[in-house]
Amino acid sequence: MGLAPGPEAWLISVGNELLIGRVVNTNMAWLGRRLTLLGYRVGAGLVVPDEVEAIAWAFRTAVDRGAKVIVSTGGLGPTFDDKTSEGLAVAMGVELALNEEALKMIEEKYSGALTESRVKMARMPRGARPIPNPVGTAPGVEVEWRGALIFLLPGVPAEMEAMFERHVEPKLRSLGPRPHCAEALLRVRGVPESLLAPVVEEAMKLSALAYIKSHPRGSELGQHVVDLHITAYGSTAQSAEEEVERIASYLARELQRRGAQVSRASCAGEMP
Amino acid sequence: MGLAPGPEAWLISVGNELLIGRVVNTNMAWLGRRLTLLGYRVGAGLVVPDEVEAIAWAFRTAVDRGAKVIVSTGGLGPTFDDKTSEGLAVAMGVELALNEEALKMIEEKYSGALTESRVKMARMPRGARPIPNPVGTAPGVEVEWRGALIFLLPGVPAEMEAMFERHVEPKLRSLGPRPHCAEALLRVRGVPESLLAPVVEEAMKLSALAYIKSHPRGSELGQHVVDLHITAYGSTAQSAEEEVERIASYLARELQRRGAQVSRASCAGEMP
Repeated sequence: MGLAPGPEAWLISVGNELLIGRVVNTNMAWLGRRLTLLGYRVGAGLVVPDEVEAIAWAFRTAVDRGAKVIVSTGGLGPTFDDKTSEGLAVAMGVELALNEEALKMIEEKYSGALTESRVKMARMPRGARPIPNPVGTAPGVEVEWRGALIFLLPGVPAEMEAMFERHVEPKLRSLGPRPHCAEALLRVRGVPESLLAPVVEEAMKLSALAYIKSHPRGSELGQHVVDLHITAYGSTAQSAEEEVERIASYLARELQRRGAQVSRASCAGEMP
Repeated sequence: MGLAPGPEAWLISVGNELLIGRVVNTNMAWLGRRLTLLGYRVGAGLVVPDEVEAIAWAFRTAVDRGAKVIVSTGGLGPTFDDKTSEGLAVAMGVELALNEEALKMIEEKYSGALTESRVKMARMPRGARPIPNPVGTAPGVEVEWRGALIFLLPGVPAEMEAMFERHVEPKLRSLGPRPHCAEALLRVRGVPESLLAPVVEEAMKLSALAYIKSHPRGSELGQHVVDLHITAYGSTAQSAEEEVERIASYLARELQRRGAQVSRASCAGEMP
């Protein structure tokens, strides 16, 4: 169960709720998997409280230890205990400045009704760029510092995931280690998604390099239809394809045993 | 949602599976909650891969940053990629030595059938003491270093939790910040534990300082009976009692709304 061999990525999770155990850190696992699939070696994860000094320490430490990509989650909201931007500014030794582009994003969300705590979400380390938030209100932050590309994302999983998929992932894919990629689409009839989930979960455990997404397609002639989109990465095109085949065969076999009809679709036209 | 005000505790999670996102780190949340309830300030969590140098770095960093208690999970098993003891020995600059007491524990588990990989689990930093594992086979490790009390526990949650409750918690309670503690016992009739769980979960979210454990007591006159044991900590006896009352009232109200009969039992004779 090895780490990917690519450039070093570090994860930083900000939030007291993670340290006092009120919330389980699912964001770190989600990001770890995605960065691994993109070919990055996820070298470590740091969990720190909502304190400027601790946050600054985490970013300094990640860069000192060789991180080329850093993704943080949490601490971007409007309240006094959202301190990630300030902590990063302290680490970088730059001012926390009002970002006009971010302010515009926030103004649109609130139809112009700005308050001090809303404006706060537009304060970023000088030189940073905002990342649009298609789900919530707090913009993300992107900045380069000492050879590392740093992304600050919100802690709410739905916002974090949407921003990673729309902004961070395409960027990392264009810059990154460019691992080879292969994919397959299985159309599964006759099994509802809830019964499918444990099989998909087992399949995910078989591979650190594959990712499976299920897309329910509703009913057809009274039967549930779900598409399973399998993606796998490898250092060569052949190893990526072999990995996809291995996972697709496992899924087809296990689902047929549970009474499903499984057909293989071509990916090209059907990519979600 | 503040951290507890007591001495600094750090958590270290060892395992590639956490960084590639194959496993969600529930251990960190569980330990964070328990240490908070014991009055420790959980200052940070470090997640590192199964690599000696990274593990050594994590322990050095925690001590350098002022941790008085360090609890690690993972990396104690018999396979080649279980490296936590070795990493700690490197950090401490001491030898990894065969511990006779640990070897005896392991011998008993396997009825004397020792192999090289089993003996490996008895190798610990010189000066360390083994912690019995009542659930699995790998002993834990306890050692003092540079003013910090360090506990290495296995990554399997059931083993980690049992060893924490039987060994680490009593020790920390006797050494620790001695926060005041209060408790209450609610006997709940007429609602099965599965319907009770979401209410208990909501109640746990109301308080960083309270902990609720449910003990199903089977059926009585055809009704489900479950005991809820509520514990809360505070810096004074009064604040601990108020916290327990707050959580107990919430639980009683919410469960009665769902049709349960709730009675208050005295703790003294009924402690689990």
